[in-house]
Amino acid sequence: MNSKHFLDLDPSPRILLGPGPSMAPSRVLRAMATPLIGHLDPEFIALMKEIQELLRYAFQTENELTIPISGTGSAGMEASLANFIEPGDPVLIAVNGYFGERLCDMAGRYGAHVDRIDRPWGEVFTVAEIETALAKKHYKLLAIVHAETSTGALQPEIADIAAAAHHHGALLILDTVTSLGGVPVEIDAWGVDVAYSGTQKALSCPPGLAPLTVSPRAREILHTRKTTVANWYLDLSMVEHYWGDTRTYHHTAPISMNYALREALRIVAEEGLENRFTRHRTHAELLWEGLTELGLPPLVPIEYRLPTLTTPLLPEGLDEAAIRRHLLGEYNVEIAGGFGPLKGKVWRIGLMGFSSRRENVLLLLNALRELLRY
Amino acid sequence: MNSKHFLDLDPSPRILLGPGPSMAPSRVLRAMATPLIGHLDPEFIALMKEIQELLRYAFQTENELTIPISGTGSAGMEASLANFIEPGDPVLIAVNGYFGERLCDMAGRYGAHVDRIDRPWGEVFTVAEIETALAKKHYKLLAIVHAETSTGALQPEIADIAAAAHHHGALLILDTVTSLGGVPVEIDAWGVDVAYSGTQKALSCPPGLAPLTVSPRAREILHTRKTTVANWYLDLSMVEHYWGDTRTYHHTAPISMNYALREALRIVAEEGLENRFTRHRTHAELLWEGLTELGLPPLVPIEYRLPTLTTPLLPEGLDEAAIRRHLLGEYNVEIAGGFGPLKGKVWRIGLMGFSSRRENVLLLLNALRELLRY
Repeated sequence: MNSKHFLDLDPSPRILLGPGPSMAPSRVLRAMATPLIGHLDPEFIALMKEIQELLRYAFQTENELTIPISGTGSAGMEASLANFIEPGDPVLIAVNGYFGERLCDMAGRYGAHVDRIDRPWGEVFTVAEIETALAKKHYKLLAIVHAETSTGALQPEIADIAAAAHHHGALLILDTVTSLGGVPVEIDAWGVDVAYSGTQKALSCPPGLAPLTVSPRAREILHTRKTTVANWYLDLSMVEHYWGDTRTYHHTAPISMNYALREALRIVAEEGLENRFTRHRTHAELLWEGLTELGLPPLVPIEYRLPTLTTPLLPEGLDEAAIRRHLLGEYNVEIAGGFGPLKGKVWRIGLMGFSSRRENVLLLLNALRELLRY
Repeated sequence: MNSKHFLDLDPSPRILLGPGPSMAPSRVLRAMATPLIGHLDPEFIALMKEIQELLRYAFQTENELTIPISGTGSAGMEASLANFIEPGDPVLIAVNGYFGERLCDMAGRYGAHVDRIDRPWGEVFTVAEIETALAKKHYKLLAIVHAETSTGALQPEIADIAAAAHHHGALLILDTVTSLGGVPVEIDAWGVDVAYSGTQKALSCPPGLAPLTVSPRAREILHTRKTTVANWYLDLSMVEHYWGDTRTYHHTAPISMNYALREALRIVAEEGLENRFTRHRTHAELLWEGLTELGLPPLVPIEYRLPTLTTPLLPEGLDEAAIRRHLLGEYNVEIAGGFGPLKGKVWRIGLMGFSSRRENVLLLLNALRELLRY
């Protein structure tokens, strides 16, 4: 093989304003370049404890079982379903975007009887309609997306939804992939049983790990399963022993990704969650104002609009894909198109974590102004 | 939260001579510190093509479906089983160590009827006994471990085993976690249908990805499944579209880990497989000689002894855990203990990838000489 064919790695300096990955701070990138230690080394075990402590802060929880799953956000979603579903279990899934659809697909693979409650893409659910759906049958769990990356909608009233689920004897599983670290996520105060996220959005750590937290109530259900978890890699009854006091080998933890996550979470702790939420909100508002001036008003009403991901409505007839190509090729700015029912109708603009910066908003707005020929 | 509690990352400079992770070359570590680009960026897609080409060289295959799975080696094992097993399928698994046991556990979770053929830990199988087992029933697949990380045994005659499997209408799945990049692995010449590996052994890339290759014959079986793959994250019928020509979004690829894998594979290509195998063999022989002089002869007979992982037999009564603690604490050298039936009876010493260096062997032998008070 001619190895000279493969040149030195030298990607273009992208400004990442899509739905993820967001840009990673240089401290996080440097952390990954740290030489490896073993996954059972006492020093790595000390780092694991720190990562758990930092993750509990990000999730605002005391849950002991709070860990990064060794895969990207989708693996966190699958771990949340695989461990709490046994074949035949009735589950209720709220679907108002692509990630709700994916929850249905995954839950079905684990043998759940899936009922769904639907809202058009871009809308959110009322507590009343969820309560009505929960009352129809005894569901083992309700799964809902906090921040829909496909639409830019932020589901409000999670505490009330959790209370409704518990009232009807169901666990609440919450997708926080695009909310954790960017907008308030209060696992304990809200009463969420299981929540998962990804590292590559508002935490600004490269993709590769999925933060997960499990309440004592949910953990009890895990321990009283009648069947083996139908997924070895994501089986929390084994994974919890590696992250728990026994440190029993399960799989080799991705060392460098855990280095990166620790550094990203350290930055979150240094900034403080409140400051971080304010920063995300401030820059999102600047973006919304500018987009509206450009004739690209956000799809989602302000009451439940997500600060981390904005979906501007596009004028009919706009060659939106061409504009995105120009943005990337000429300005090094990445944004994403819509998909599903929103394909061609919206863009998806992320201002997440380290990417949520005033200078990025100004660059994007001016680039769009040029490309739209204002 | 008091963020000052979390100090700058500064792990001890370990010499990693355990069963993985091995040490990563500085070029690989630096590649991970490269700023991110998006997972659908044309530049990333070009990198993906290069990674596939480099992986094909490492596996010695023309298989189009040759990709890194977005998880550690165990996720590669699970992908190999989940995609080719449907509920009720009879499968045959050869078990002569821990990873054979794990194959049985995983296959069972996907509803396979598992028959096993056993050999004591540290031994290997003859083609004749595998042929006899295959003749008993029509199996959909046979899974076997090429290099058993729990014992240090290298299964010979894979080409003959593949021929036997095919003769009886079964696919051959081969675990190459501790062989790929360290000893010859000839997927096409041997006729292996599915093989998986990890990045953190003889490829010397940090843990986090699992190279996988699938023959056209196996891919055909994937495409004619009657049931949905019972694992969303590892469903190759979707993953292949992201790595194929359509580049359809499935999950966010771990960008930094793919940067690292590309660099690690570039180093493999620069060194050349033959040189790499010779280097592994030479340093392993130096280790074997030194261990024997120290009264710690390798467990596995030389005919099927694995150059990447050596399991020296320990004298009875030795406090082996204490010696490993001293090695780590005073010499910064990591080796591992045995487990299962070999717990307390052997150590597991890895000389893999970048860790396979003459200076590391000399350091380890002299450290052991001091600790064993010779």
